[in-house]
Amino acid sequence: MTDRVILGCGKSFKEADIVVFGAPYDGTASFRPGSRFAPGAMRTESHGLETYSPYFHKDLETDACVHDAGDLELPFGNRDKVLEIIRRKVMDLIRSGKRPFMMGGDHLVTYPAVMAVSEAFPELHLLHFDAHADLRQDYLGEWFSHSTVIRRVHDLLGDGKIFQFGIRSGTKSEFQIAECGRVYAELFTMHTLPDIAALLRGKPVYVTLDIDVLDPSCVPGTGTPEPGGVSFHDILRALQVLKGMHIAGGDLVELAPCLDPSGASTAVACKLMREFLLAMG
Amino acid sequence: MTDRVILGCGKSFKEADIVVFGAPYDGTASFRPGSRFAPGAMRTESHGLETYSPYFHKDLETDACVHDAGDLELPFGNRDKVLEIIRRKVMDLIRSGKRPFMMGGDHLVTYPAVMAVSEAFPELHLLHFDAHADLRQDYLGEWFSHSTVIRRVHDLLGDGKIFQFGIRSGTKSEFQIAECGRVYAELFTMHTLPDIAALLRGKPVYVTLDIDVLDPSCVPGTGTPEPGGVSFHDILRALQVLKGMHIAGGDLVELAPCLDPSGASTAVACKLMREFLLAMG
Amino acid sequence: MTDRVILGCGKSFKEADIVVFGAPYDGTASFRPGSRFAPGAMRTESHGLETYSPYFHKDLETDACVHDAGDLELPFGNRDKVLEIIRRKVMDLIRSGKRPFMMGGDHLVTYPAVMAVSEAFPELHLLHFDAHADLRQDYLGEWFSHSTVIRRVHDLLGDGKIFQFGIRSGTKSEFQIAECGRVYAELFTMHTLPDIAALLRGKPVYVTLDIDVLDPSCVPGTGTPEPGGVSFHDILRALQVLKGMHIAGGDLVELAPCLDPSGASTAVACKLMREFLLAMG
Amino acid sequence: MTDRVILGCGKSFKEADIVVFGAPYDGTASFRPGSRFAPGAMRTESHGLETYSPYFHKDLETDACVHDAGDLELPFGNRDKVLEIIRRKVMDLIRSGKRPFMMGGDHLVTYPAVMAVSEAFPELHLLHFDAHADLRQDYLGEWFSHSTVIRRVHDLLGDGKIFQFGIRSGTKSEFQIAECGRVYAELFTMHTLPDIAALLRGKPVYVTLDIDVLDPSCVPGTGTPEPGGVSFHDILRALQVLKGMHIAGGDLVELAPCLDPSGASTAVACKLMREFLLAMG
Amino acid sequence: MTDRVILGCGKSFKEADIVVFGAPYDGTASFRPGSRFAPGAMRTESHGLETYSPYFHKDLETDACVHDAGDLELPFGNRDKVLEIIRRKVMDLIRSGKRPFMMGGDHLVTYPAVMAVSEAFPELHLLHFDAHADLRQDYLGEWFSHSTVIRRVHDLLGDGKIFQFGIRSGTKSEFQIAECGRVYAELFTMHTLPDIAALLRGKPVYVTLDIDVLDPSCVPGTGTPEPGGVSFHDILRALQVLKGMHIAGGDLVELAPCLDPSGASTAVACKLMREFLLAMG
Amino acid sequence: MTDRVILGCGKSFKEADIVVFGAPYDGTASFRPGSRFAPGAMRTESHGLETYSPYFHKDLETDACVHDAGDLELPFGNRDKVLEIIRRKVMDLIRSGKRPFMMGGDHLVTYPAVMAVSEAFPELHLLHFDAHADLRQDYLGEWFSHSTVIRRVHDLLGDGKIFQFGIRSGTKSEFQIAECGRVYAELFTMHTLPDIAALLRGKPVYVTLDIDVLDPSCVPGTGTPEPGGVSFHDILRALQVLKGMHIAGGDLVELAPCLDPSGASTAVACKLMREFLLAMG
Repeated sequence: MTDRVILGCGKSFKEADIVVFGAPYDGTASFRPGSRFAPGAMRTESHGLETYSPYFHKDLETDACVHDAGDLELPFGNRDKVLEIIRRKVMDLIRSGKRPFMMGGDHLVTYPAVMAVSEAFPELHLLHFDAHADLRQDYLGEWFSHSTVIRRVHDLLGDGKIFQFGIRSGTKSEFQIAECGRVYAELFTMHTLPDIAALLRGKPVYVTLDIDVLDPSCVPGTGTPEPGGVSFHDILRALQVLKGMHIAGGDLVELAPCLDPSGASTAVACKLMREFLLAMG
Repeated sequence: MTDRVILGCGKSFKEADIVVFGAPYDGTASFRPGSRFAPGAMRTESHGLETYSPYFHKDLETDACVHDAGDLELPFGNRDKVLEIIRRKVMDLIRSGKRPFMMGGDHLVTYPAVMAVSEAFPELHLLHFDAHADLRQDYLGEWFSHSTVIRRVHDLLGDGKIFQFGIRSGTKSEFQIAECGRVYAELFTMHTLPDIAALLRGKPVYVTLDIDVLDPSCVPGTGTPEPGGVSFHDILRALQVLKGMHIAGGDLVELAPCLDPSGASTAVACKLMREFLLAMG
Repeated sequence: MTDRVILGCGKSFKEADIVVFGAPYDGTASFRPGSRFAPGAMRTESHGLETYSPYFHKDLETDACVHDAGDLELPFGNRDKVLEIIRRKVMDLIRSGKRPFMMGGDHLVTYPAVMAVSEAFPELHLLHFDAHADLRQDYLGEWFSHSTVIRRVHDLLGDGKIFQFGIRSGTKSEFQIAECGRVYAELFTMHTLPDIAALLRGKPVYVTLDIDVLDPSCVPGTGTPEPGGVSFHDILRALQVLKGMHIAGGDLVELAPCLDPSGASTAVACKLMREFLLAMG
Repeated sequence: MTDRVILGCGKSFKEADIVVFGAPYDGTASFRPGSRFAPGAMRTESHGLETYSPYFHKDLETDACVHDAGDLELPFGNRDKVLEIIRRKVMDLIRSGKRPFMMGGDHLVTYPAVMAVSEAFPELHLLHFDAHADLRQDYLGEWFSHSTVIRRVHDLLGDGKIFQFGIRSGTKSEFQIAECGRVYAELFTMHTLPDIAALLRGKPVYVTLDIDVLDPSCVPGTGTPEPGGVSFHDILRALQVLKGMHIAGGDLVELAPCLDPSGASTAVACKLMREFLLAMG
Repeated sequence: MTDRVILGCGKSFKEADIVVFGAPYDGTASFRPGSRFAPGAMRTESHGLETYSPYFHKDLETDACVHDAGDLELPFGNRDKVLEIIRRKVMDLIRSGKRPFMMGGDHLVTYPAVMAVSEAFPELHLLHFDAHADLRQDYLGEWFSHSTVIRRVHDLLGDGKIFQFGIRSGTKSEFQIAECGRVYAELFTMHTLPDIAALLRGKPVYVTLDIDVLDPSCVPGTGTPEPGGVSFHDILRALQVLKGMHIAGGDLVELAPCLDPSGASTAVACKLMREFLLAMG
Repeated sequence: MTDRVILGCGKSFKEADIVVFGAPYDGTASFRPGSRFAPGAMRTESHGLETYSPYFHKDLETDACVHDAGDLELPFGNRDKVLEIIRRKVMDLIRSGKRPFMMGGDHLVTYPAVMAVSEAFPELHLLHFDAHADLRQDYLGEWFSHSTVIRRVHDLLGDGKIFQFGIRSGTKSEFQIAECGRVYAELFTMHTLPDIAALLRGKPVYVTLDIDVLDPSCVPGTGTPEPGGVSFHDILRALQVLKGMHIAGGDLVELAPCLDPSGASTAVACKLMREFLLAMG
């Protein structure tokens, strides 16, 4: 069989510090599905990317301890069971002393991951990079959706624990949640990230990166492209800032590779994943 | 606003005998989603199709009584609620003395429609055109899926009520269900349809047409294309055979328009829908 | 510069009997434009096709006298001037003793070509292969459109001169024109072509081949795909039947290459053009 | 029927101040057509966009008075009639006291709109955002084309009334028209817009936004992509500058959605339209 | 890692009779490359296909002894080394008592495979299904090309050993090779296959299936689509005929999956591979 | 035949100073081929681009002396012969007193061009714009590959002659070659280009522009997109800097037009080629 270890993440489970896995679920995508294909596409496309990072001056293959645990098999159509499978997977990893890095999937997959990590780290904070606030109370009557996921995480973590960057889309009431201080939100940009990072240094943090925080010119391959986003260099700098923080887990979600058949969107996701893992390592 | 009545189905609800609606749900598609976009694409593509049929020598606009009720708004991610919304919609139509014609969506949407129709017609039979038997007991542990839908319909209707045509894909055990006579299945072709139609004349029948019964050369735009299917002329003849039967309801499912950007697959679906409605009318 | 003579049609203008040219105009396409790109795509795609025909046992390069005159430059937006340019081009060819073969373009380009040919041959007949009758009196108030083109040709040639094959789409009133005998129309198929060809032997004939007469499974790359069409073998046989007739001119229209990026539709057009030219030769 | 009011523009005609409509005509596109599909695609894609703008802190649905009048039905192939239909539509709106916002279509549709608006406002000025000067005297002999449209508008409005921004493509002679001061043109960028806007404050202005003023990385979905354009943030800032001006009418043209199947180009167009309407409101 | 055994070919190398492997090389494709991606695409797409064949009434997973050896790593740009790697791979399999089944790659990969098999079976015959004769002496001066491969095989096996079916494209001189009896060629169809198969019963045969023998309506995803091909049912019947022959090796070549993004072409290839393996088994 | 002179490069060979030609070879592309189609696509797409540059205030058609020599016919599958054909072509041009500008093709085509130019100019320097260092000693055992091309050029030119800009991808050992000073490499950006250009003024320079030096948002149509690249404005400024240098030859490589069907990537390549030629002129 052809080797499918992503990005040189070839350490055994035992020796690994970080464990990568895919959560190919897009059942709550309201508009255009397709993020279910992200882990598979990233595995294929990553062959075009070097494992060495000239930004961190490190090679993911030799200078980091990452194991690739493959992709979860998830029952489409049964959202609640999907959430439970993800939650258990992350809990197992945490209990084995590993830190999870999950390739989504639509953004809802972040919820069970944060739930599992926050059991181990009750003081967990969330760093959230996204175009969309995802703070709706419900979406078409549904409590659990990729449009409500940060609201559900807020239900778990409470006020003052969530820090959003790059936000540029939401209803008036979603923006008001930030305005009244329940979550921290920097609109459009992420200039204040270094300050927030300094503030959170030493505290356990879960980092969720919705790839649509980037401008659609970089990543047209996402379900709800929102123009006016940050640049690739911005997010690269952000990942440099994260280096040295206590990142208890992370994910990269909402890549819909089929919407960009050039492969460029997937290449962006792979490169960000490489840098993300080096920032965690 | 631009008029979006499909295929000249412009009768008022009151004067209509048949009511068309869309059920844009593809939450259980195991492989490639996209049938959620079928009703919308059919509405757009149908502008390229005449309302007059030279096969039936009738015009859907002037010679039939069909109302277009638009598309249901369905909460992605909550399969059970979706099924309930469809069931209620069909039940409402039945109670108003209308016959439903549903544009899917993935094949699971047939289940709640049959459930509602069978309440009004306890002796309901199912005519099933499909490449796949869809008779699995479960799929990845899920009871309700587009791969199990005919098994679920069998739970409702019982032995001897289901007649399948064009079947060419399934597990060994699915084929055995037909072999032991619990459902009638003609493999590969539909030569026996006239006989079956004669047998069922006068009895209430629900007709479900999975567009992948056609060869992928005709309809590449479907989630699980299965080569070796029937031709467009075959299915056209089949719809002619249905004329005069007591069709209590029907549907056309599993078109995934984005997988065939030429529009040809959607054109096939629209034309079959026109003929289907004239066969019902 | 790279040589762009199509299909080995490399004879000089002087020595040629047939002259090929492109008419890249799609200004009246009602639904999806794109046939303007047909001549260019056919020039590129034809490199994948041999010039030898195992059907006619002849090589277009060595056994026929065809000159490639390139493509007309047509002013988009000015339909009347476009029609005039085409008419003059064909008239010039006729006056030089050449027979024209035109690559469309949408079907309206046939009108000025027939007009020019019919001046030289007042008793001109039309053989018309198409899915659509194209016999509307007007389209959205427009007299000249790809949906009215055969009606306009009928205005020129009169009753009893037009023979249609493969027709399967039209309004009720379009079908009635054939029913009352003003044009001859074989619906769906072309079984009667040999009889008609025998009838017309010796008489001047213009042959127009709308590529959508073929089933969309063969040619998804066309603006208004109409399922239920004839097969490639059917049309190949038809072109064999034409051999020996007095073909005063011909065209192949309505290929929209961008709608089928696989190139298969364009490959069909190129191969039919090769056989068409050998049938004329 | 599914509701198709774009971007929450749900006010009745009577209560509206601004009226939105589509002009799906691309008959003069010289290279790649497709802008005829822009209004339809924007209606579909706009479902993925919030009606609230965090830039203006306003919600288009609740804080503005915009009516969606649907799309015009335009006879392809008859350019002059198309221009006349658009002119009348805009004149009707002006006479009803409404301000028009038109979704093109190719850039030629701007001409009849400006003609109608300038009848009511003889001192009308034009703000023109575009990659191309569109100042040719004719194109392939045609007076009316998307490459000559601003020259035709200049014929109407005269010297000193036209202000172009972002221009980076034209013939030498087009650039000379600006150099000799007959129109104002800022090449490549739009830094001088605030000064021009101040100059024009209180005067009636028509604003035409050719989406190809943006860099093709933002909007690959346009017929003649011209690299080196302004960024999304640039154009967003420009729309902020327009706030408070006397905008008598506006349009957004040259989106060709099919050329960018990711949907990102259409998403850009929708978001700019939202901001444009809020700037007018 | 996700399991990537194709089509349930999960036997160990030791217990297997047939060994499947991919040869992803398309370096000699003259027109459109892309067959290098065929093995990978077939591995992905095969997840949508059952392992049970209702044609053979057998399940590839349980009723056959096939091992999946993964894909070869081939140095692009060095044709001769590629050929040598394939030759050695096949020779190793033969020496281990296995029969090879190779997924191409362009058709040239057949040459080294036949070379290796013919060493073990000097009396080897070739069954060749293809649209193209592939009998050129050279192509643009190149001796080894996907257009010359059968000529090179003829160099190895000699006169009277090669049997071609479905051929419909070639130069005049290629057709003459068959006419003078050096190879057997049935043009267009494969009606004589049963007779040939009876003739060859008991003799060692290598079967090469160029997927473009099928009509492009079935398989648009191939580099040089040639209209007028056989149907899927034809080739299915052919594979049934092969059952019981002494098939020493086989391959399926020239699928270019990216040219048909619907996935239908790849689905055809997967299903033919399943039937091919059951015919060999 | 339609005129296919690219970008107004219509001078005769005799009067020309610069000669443009295409080298459509992509045989060593390791991941996604397609650059073989670049010259053809650029010829087609260039029709949408003016020949006048508002950056240089010059018109390529009238203010420069460039001849278009068409595209080489290259034997796919025989890399060594391809390299030899290119080398001879460039040598012929040099001997005729012309300066070559080559449209690739994958990056390996640069090697034979540099070889030929360096024979005439032994002190040749290389300016190299690229995302990838291309300094591997071998790739999968192959000495000649698009991943090793600059290493091979280094074999020819020696230490201190190669200047790389925009590099952001490579193995650790490739970066070390620059670190130890054997080649000059500016990572990520090209701020130091003016200094280097000043340094090299008067010396013969070959300029190779791998289009993937640009960010994939500008050019998704390339085989190995590498996010984090320079902007279109950056490269435009770079070409301005080159003006006045002694450019003995140049090329533009690695455009894979089919990967970006919008045409925007090809538009970028055409515009850069126009500016490149004006910088040389």
